[in-house]
Amino acid sequence: MVFGQGKRPEHVATLATALLEGSDRLLVTRASQDAFAAVSAEIPDAVYDDSARTIVVDRREAREQVSGVVVASGGTSDAPVAEEAAITAELMDCRVERLLDVGVAGLHRLLDKVDVLQNARVVVAVAGMEGALPSVVGGLVKAPVIAVPTSVGYGASFEGVTALLAMMNSCAPGVIVVNIDNGFGAGYLAAMIARAGADKS
Amino acid sequence: MVFGQGKRPEHVATLATALLEGSDRLLVTRASQDAFAAVSAEIPDAVYDDSARTIVVDRREAREQVSGVVVASGGTSDAPVAEEAAITAELMDCRVERLLDVGVAGLHRLLDKVDVLQNARVVVAVAGMEGALPSVVGGLVKAPVIAVPTSVGYGASFEGVTALLAMMNSCAPGVIVVNIDNGFGAGYLAAMIARAGADKS
Amino acid sequence: MVFGQGKRPEHVATLATALLEGSDRLLVTRASQDAFAAVSAEIPDAVYDDSARTIVVDRREAREQVSGVVVASGGTSDAPVAEEAAITAELMDCRVERLLDVGVAGLHRLLDKVDVLQNARVVVAVAGMEGALPSVVGGLVKAPVIAVPTSVGYGASFEGVTALLAMMNSCAPGVIVVNIDNGFGAGYLAAMIARAGADKS
Amino acid sequence: MVFGQGKRPEHVATLATALLEGSDRLLVTRASQDAFAAVSAEIPDAVYDDSARTIVVDRREAREQVSGVVVASGGTSDAPVAEEAAITAELMDCRVERLLDVGVAGLHRLLDKVDVLQNARVVVAVAGMEGALPSVVGGLVKAPVIAVPTSVGYGASFEGVTALLAMMNSCAPGVIVVNIDNGFGAGYLAAMIARAGADKS
Amino acid sequence: MVFGQGKRPEHVATLATALLEGSDRLLVTRASQDAFAAVSAEIPDAVYDDSARTIVVDRREAREQVSGVVVASGGTSDAPVAEEAAITAELMDCRVERLLDVGVAGLHRLLDKVDVLQNARVVVAVAGMEGALPSVVGGLVKAPVIAVPTSVGYGASFEGVTALLAMMNSCAPGVIVVNIDNGFGAGYLAAMIARAGADKS
Amino acid sequence: MVFGQGKRPEHVATLATALLEGSDRLLVTRASQDAFAAVSAEIPDAVYDDSARTIVVDRREAREQVSGVVVASGGTSDAPVAEEAAITAELMDCRVERLLDVGVAGLHRLLDKVDVLQNARVVVAVAGMEGALPSVVGGLVKAPVIAVPTSVGYGASFEGVTALLAMMNSCAPGVIVVNIDNGFGAGYLAAMIARAGADKS
Amino acid sequence: MVFGQGKRPEHVATLATALLEGSDRLLVTRASQDAFAAVSAEIPDAVYDDSARTIVVDRREAREQVSGVVVASGGTSDAPVAEEAAITAELMDCRVERLLDVGVAGLHRLLDKVDVLQNARVVVAVAGMEGALPSVVGGLVKAPVIAVPTSVGYGASFEGVTALLAMMNSCAPGVIVVNIDNGFGAGYLAAMIARAGADKS
Amino acid sequence: MVFGQGKRPEHVATLATALLEGSDRLLVTRASQDAFAAVSAEIPDAVYDDSARTIVVDRREAREQVSGVVVASGGTSDAPVAEEAAITAELMDCRVERLLDVGVAGLHRLLDKVDVLQNARVVVAVAGMEGALPSVVGGLVKAPVIAVPTSVGYGASFEGVTALLAMMNSCAPGVIVVNIDNGFGAGYLAAMIARAGADKS
Repeated sequence: MVFGQGKRPEHVATLATALLEGSDRLLVTRASQDAFAAVSAEIPDAVYDDSARTIVVDRREAREQVSGVVVASGGTSDAPVAEEAAITAELMDCRVERLLDVGVAGLHRLLDKVDVLQNARVVVAVAGMEGALPSVVGGLVKAPVIAVPTSVGYGASFEGVTALLAMMNSCAPGVIVVNIDNGFGAGYLAAMIARAGADKS
Repeated sequence: MVFGQGKRPEHVATLATALLEGSDRLLVTRASQDAFAAVSAEIPDAVYDDSARTIVVDRREAREQVSGVVVASGGTSDAPVAEEAAITAELMDCRVERLLDVGVAGLHRLLDKVDVLQNARVVVAVAGMEGALPSVVGGLVKAPVIAVPTSVGYGASFEGVTALLAMMNSCAPGVIVVNIDNGFGAGYLAAMIARAGADKS
Repeated sequence: MVFGQGKRPEHVATLATALLEGSDRLLVTRASQDAFAAVSAEIPDAVYDDSARTIVVDRREAREQVSGVVVASGGTSDAPVAEEAAITAELMDCRVERLLDVGVAGLHRLLDKVDVLQNARVVVAVAGMEGALPSVVGGLVKAPVIAVPTSVGYGASFEGVTALLAMMNSCAPGVIVVNIDNGFGAGYLAAMIARAGADKS
Repeated sequence: MVFGQGKRPEHVATLATALLEGSDRLLVTRASQDAFAAVSAEIPDAVYDDSARTIVVDRREAREQVSGVVVASGGTSDAPVAEEAAITAELMDCRVERLLDVGVAGLHRLLDKVDVLQNARVVVAVAGMEGALPSVVGGLVKAPVIAVPTSVGYGASFEGVTALLAMMNSCAPGVIVVNIDNGFGAGYLAAMIARAGADKS
Repeated sequence: MVFGQGKRPEHVATLATALLEGSDRLLVTRASQDAFAAVSAEIPDAVYDDSARTIVVDRREAREQVSGVVVASGGTSDAPVAEEAAITAELMDCRVERLLDVGVAGLHRLLDKVDVLQNARVVVAVAGMEGALPSVVGGLVKAPVIAVPTSVGYGASFEGVTALLAMMNSCAPGVIVVNIDNGFGAGYLAAMIARAGADKS
Repeated sequence: MVFGQGKRPEHVATLATALLEGSDRLLVTRASQDAFAAVSAEIPDAVYDDSARTIVVDRREAREQVSGVVVASGGTSDAPVAEEAAITAELMDCRVERLLDVGVAGLHRLLDKVDVLQNARVVVAVAGMEGALPSVVGGLVKAPVIAVPTSVGYGASFEGVTALLAMMNSCAPGVIVVNIDNGFGAGYLAAMIARAGADKS
Repeated sequence: MVFGQGKRPEHVATLATALLEGSDRLLVTRASQDAFAAVSAEIPDAVYDDSARTIVVDRREAREQVSGVVVASGGTSDAPVAEEAAITAELMDCRVERLLDVGVAGLHRLLDKVDVLQNARVVVAVAGMEGALPSVVGGLVKAPVIAVPTSVGYGASFEGVTALLAMMNSCAPGVIVVNIDNGFGAGYLAAMIARAGADKS
Repeated sequence: MVFGQGKRPEHVATLATALLEGSDRLLVTRASQDAFAAVSAEIPDAVYDDSARTIVVDRREAREQVSGVVVASGGTSDAPVAEEAAITAELMDCRVERLLDVGVAGLHRLLDKVDVLQNARVVVAVAGMEGALPSVVGGLVKAPVIAVPTSVGYGASFEGVTALLAMMNSCAPGVIVVNIDNGFGAGYLAAMIARAGADKS
């Protein structure tokens, strides 16, 4: 895995090529279009996701996927972080159900999906601004909820700090928090938890 | 109105007596049992509310009350602030509907009361910890929602600052915020808004 | 309503067009000149306000307007946020009185308008720097005062945080606060309150 | 579960008695000696843990326990929070391995237990001050690591905020964070994760 | 001058006695009743001010006083800090005009005293909560305004930090700020400035 | 006076021209080269200071100047703010003595100028980073010291906040603080104080 | 070494006794009088320092001491932390020169001791409030300066945070910082550095 | 030494040339490629380090070097700051051992170098994100550890503040902290300490 932000395109390409020598999978997060161009020149089978800004290479044969990961996000601006989480979990052999635009200000949209949530082994809940989504989800499900604050917002959102603090104080048990905009970390953890359950079956 | 916190009982009693010379109503907020004892010795018709920690005197004749104020609170520990808001609005001639213990982690309790909320002219939403209640309420109603952060919580709740910031960033339009634990201010405003509507009728 | 900040012009235009399919009104806030150009190409009757940076479309027939909304602002740099509030309230069928440049350092300008303030059903008070305007206004009127901190200032103004905190601590009862630079939210609320009063008449 | 902090002993006893009417298990966290005395008078089979400050009642028949939960803590002052986590997980039918006093300043003590850590399904890592333990543990294991910052420290530890922030920024993937001193939340989550794995077997 | 806070009574008495050996004036600030009792036993001519919590000794012959210092304060709870400033300036041979309870929420009380303010050589403006008084005063006078934030308030007043920040951002030129509750510093400076003007006459 | 930062050149020129219609003096602070070009086209006698980034117009006849203002600054990067203070005081008819590069890490440079400092009526002390200069100066002089924190520094200097806080806590009496980088405010106040002394002579 | 703060006297005594079984030296920091009483009952040769609040046991034969450690402190209230540093270094076989009350507001007292400072191998500089002492000392000496912020101060000193930040930003090279009130850490490090030099001789 | 950040290339060149008139050594930190081009035109023997962004001139004859300085860094992004520290120490006649990429999430890499660390006279430990490296190193060595927080990270790393706070709270004795990204300060101090030991031999 390569953290693409702040790295020059050619540096990302070099790192990516080096990693693929010892692995048959690659994930670059926060990759710019330019970084993808540089990577793509070296690694023709690299796939770019415009929303999540990820570059993925998966050279493994088709593998069985674990179900039970749900990724929910609040507003349209939270979607890229949610997508980064989903792509990460998919690369770790999870089947991911996406529930986008289910923010708490339009509660019925979330409630329409209660059955999806309640069948999850683990839920990733992505939200900016006041960061209330994980608390509401946590009250609806028995599975662990991985809360991802995003830097979406303005003024007193302090680029995600308000959402992070709100999530740390969730009144629903079972809510855990990762760093601001850390879709990768949330997806990685969700896959760990979902697979732990499944590997034992 | 007297802000009782940090004032000595006899000082509260003196202020209360003085105020009642020019008024037929009195509200003391954040009043201790000792303060009430001192006030009560001077003003036998003073009434103490053990939960809200308010002392109320109302010597006016019965007046018509305005309906449409709903006070909702998240956890049991938020109840005193909610009660302070309710008592304040009542003293300003509003009929108040209380919805206690309707925190977002147990969403069904709140949803059971949707009709009460949707008939309100104004809702006071009181919550500590992650402060998500006003956002959820704001998504359910068309009336203004006055959000009151409380100092309930621990660790990264920072004695109400997290709830305050979350409420400032509410993704639901129509949410406005007062200071931490400021039940009085919220009740006062709710009464202003409810009466503005009613006075015109 | 579309929050234009951080969105690409063509994305704003797409959202605007989509919204107008289900509505006869549209408000885009924090819209750049480029965003307006893109919107205007699709929606010829869109109107841009250079100061407030809003795009407005109103295809409804002339409607009766509610009076009683006053928008006051402190310094010249606070005017765009004040204008966003005013335009929002106007689009919600309110007649808005603007009091610009009535900051507390030149008190007489504000005092010259006391009658306007005291006739308001609701006042929006917009200020940056030390954010004192809402307190002073709150002491002059009996109506609710919606305080809007702006990011105007430098150094220890912390891009509006100081004004926000000052407003949260207003010593005048009846003051409520929205997020930094949130002219839209303040205008929306002011209209709700003003119309609540008027709708009942 | 009852959060005992800030509640009066008799109030804790009332809540505890009420909860046991509908359940055969009870956990009171942050319970004082006085609270235990009050509970014990009503519920003779309540058990108090002096370090974790928990009151536990478990009236169920012996149940099979799930293995795989490890609770590690940094300094001696972190032990109460660690114990709260362990007791919580045990009450949720997990067998818990405790690794106390394995702070990063004495690395060999932690390294001596690498095999215990690497056999875990989930690790709870409790630390105050600089909060480095979860990062080091996260680098040693493949299982999820639930990081619990404690309020242990002085000066620039800011009662756990420094540890919380450090844990949010862990360079090891697989680390998730709960609120300061939230041993209960960590134990609850650890049990959820461990049992998810085991329930499927 | 002795800063009495946090010092044991007998320690204050020892320091006070030592200072009076080399001086004919003494000021102890933030002195408790107990500290005064200890000082008084050694220094019978010490005078205690119950509100400002100062102990003053002045053994000099009557001296001519400089006029032109005005000390204004916002709320009743700000009075002790204002009084500390006034007593300090008086001990430095200034005649002090006190304007108490002239907070911005009741503007007319302040405006009634405009002539007093405009005749001042220097104004000390003491306020807690939102700290707006110095800005309003600064707009009314041409003299320097020394702003003193107080720790009066609750919630988001952060024990005076909000007032301090607001004062730092005053939109009125001529406003300068001292530390929270630092009545002594403000009085000392006011006397320096007033006397500078007078000494030259 | 015009605050030039964040204003477009032509807007600055318009404001400047307007102000000069009612006055024979003008000061624009934080003016860019482009702003000066625009102003200069309209006002040929405008003078630009490249370091302080000020535009000055003074059309009055030569006036007598008051002496006694000293402006001292710590590092070379603090010089622009110091120069802004000096130019402001000069425009208010003060003769200003500049002591540049007298930071506390090279104490002898400051001590070489003790006589200049001790003859001052008022000292402006400008410093970034740890902001220690005003404390040291305050210990050397009897005159008021106006402390100006600058945004010079990196990392934990937080763009001047550290210097501001340090100056608020100066152990030397007689130190007062203005906002970060507020050379204008400091110069304005210094002139007020110096002239107050001189006007009376 | 035992950190005594927050530990019960009998617990301190137990820890102290245990440590002395494997060592011939003991240091308890932040020890109360009660803790000393408990320790003293078990360990008759324990020595208490009332100012530094340390308990020391040294059962080794007289050892040669290394010179070159200077401990300087700003105000009288900083002395306990300075003394803790000095006692720690002495227990590690250093001869310590103490320079108390040499704060920057009375510069001549510090300058009188320049020769002592310049002969040091390492200086510990202890200061609260604005924390300027280490910068001034750092400009006078070539040896490393260990800066210790203290929690002395009020208002915007934030219990030592302001001093800590100021010291982190020292403009003098060679200044390093430890945690607030951490006299032990500073003394320990000073001894390490002084002995490193001396051990090689 | 010249701090290059924020200075124009030609200004850096002027300062560099001036300094070399009175010295046979020069260090420019945070120098851009452009700054080097300008310097190089004047000073042909200047050497640029692309990673550390330093410009070095050393015109002295070969001198004996002191050994014992180890510079360790956590992630690849921390390398520039580590290199700045190393180059600084080398210019002060120290031989520097570099241990790059030894972050705590991959503990074995650090443990492989334990002998190098334990032979050091002083260790510089450079880390961003959670800043745990100095604590782990401090537990492994007896020499002083100079901790350098870097601004590497995102979200709640707050551009190095989290790492700085974590390092201030290190549970390992012997850890001292410099400002964020202050490789120069750390290298300077490391050289002072290493040479102090060696000079005495």
